[in-house]
Amino acid sequence: MNLIILFPEDFIEDKRVRLTGRRHRHIYSILKAQVGDELSVGVMNNKVGVGRVALIDGVSVDLEVEFKGVPPMPLPMTLILALPRPQALKRTLICASTLGIKKIIILNCHRVEKSLWQSTTLHEDSIRDHLILGLEQAKDTILPTVILRKLFKIFVEDELPEMIKGTIPFVAHPGATSPCPVAVKQPVTFFIGPEGGFIDYEVEKLKRLGFIDVDLGERILKVESVLPFVAGKMF
Amino acid sequence: MNLIILFPEDFIEDKRVRLTGRRHRHIYSILKAQVGDELSVGVMNNKVGVGRVALIDGVSVDLEVEFKGVPPMPLPMTLILALPRPQALKRTLICASTLGIKKIIILNCHRVEKSLWQSTTLHEDSIRDHLILGLEQAKDTILPTVILRKLFKIFVEDELPEMIKGTIPFVAHPGATSPCPVAVKQPVTFFIGPEGGFIDYEVEKLKRLGFIDVDLGERILKVESVLPFVAGKMF
Repeated sequence: MNLIILFPEDFIEDKRVRLTGRRHRHIYSILKAQVGDELSVGVMNNKVGVGRVALIDGVSVDLEVEFKGVPPMPLPMTLILALPRPQALKRTLICASTLGIKKIIILNCHRVEKSLWQSTTLHEDSIRDHLILGLEQAKDTILPTVILRKLFKIFVEDELPEMIKGTIPFVAHPGATSPCPVAVKQPVTFFIGPEGGFIDYEVEKLKRLGFIDVDLGERILKVESVLPFVAGKMF
Repeated sequence: MNLIILFPEDFIEDKRVRLTGRRHRHIYSILKAQVGDELSVGVMNNKVGVGRVALIDGVSVDLEVEFKGVPPMPLPMTLILALPRPQALKRTLICASTLGIKKIIILNCHRVEKSLWQSTTLHEDSIRDHLILGLEQAKDTILPTVILRKLFKIFVEDELPEMIKGTIPFVAHPGATSPCPVAVKQPVTFFIGPEGGFIDYEVEKLKRLGFIDVDLGERILKVESVLPFVAGKMF
């Protein structure tokens, strides 16, 4: 937690917040903060600044807050992700949020196990909690948008053409002839397929929309490592 | 497990192995392999090839094996890592091994909590198990070397000068003036500091040896994300 994210309900005065629960435990037990210490804070979807510890005990902490800065720039990447297993999804959400990705589509593909759609990790609160962990890590406050789509064909035909406008769309596909592009420096859409790979129909459908299939190298990375690898290459 | 790694003790004949335990469970329960199916196999620190299922039941599986290929090229990066927390260490070992890093030094730094050195994750078997998970992921067979060093000053003065010869040495340090270099394409040594950062003395000592301090950007990545991010940028 490199930044403590504040919500409207935390404010007990115009410039004073009272925190309990996870954020209090972090400040009290891990940072062992004392009155007068200054911590990095930010308001959800808003500015960042400093919180000075005004009062702290085993139950709650009061911070006097001041906001001057802006959160870091977003990464100009839209992520489309074939639904991975719950642990991989959690790590990928945290990582995407840390990297500054602001739009994530979680999509069904032929080789996604149907049972994965029952996972509690897909509940709105769980997704939000993991995105917030990523924001805290990156000292960011802008919550990414996540949308879930269970129908590949309908999503690709009805929503994707509009979504990729103004971006270069890439799909990671082992065996593609192009390597991953380097230093792209313009908005991209990046599609990561399921563990077992795409079926031909899916790749063909994406290519017909203009997606460029790229090979990330001989070594098969886990989904949560693909993201920083590609972000490092492209930006 | 994209590749099943075989050890000398698995061979019951010249070209036949019998597997039980974790690898058997993977083949039996997850891959649901049947007689005649072909699986990717490799011999630890040796060639890769194909294993044809000759016999399978709930207890063991026999594979007829043939080796023709070589494992993927290593990544020309030596990793020096300030000892992270156990969960982060496990993920970093898996990730480093998947990326093809073949030499890893786990080092003490001033801001590494002393208690972390008691972690069972540092036991030789645990380190090896996590490296193997990474090899299985990348279809690699060449086990990385990991060495542990508990004395920063002595390591840096006595061993590091020799170790960085023939490589460009970088140290990740927030606030450094150089950004992370792109497409280096030659051997590097990469040093990732502790969660709380280096102390000035440590960075100065490394810079005096020729280390170039590089900033990885405004967003602070988790140690297990730093590695694919940097590997993506540099290679």
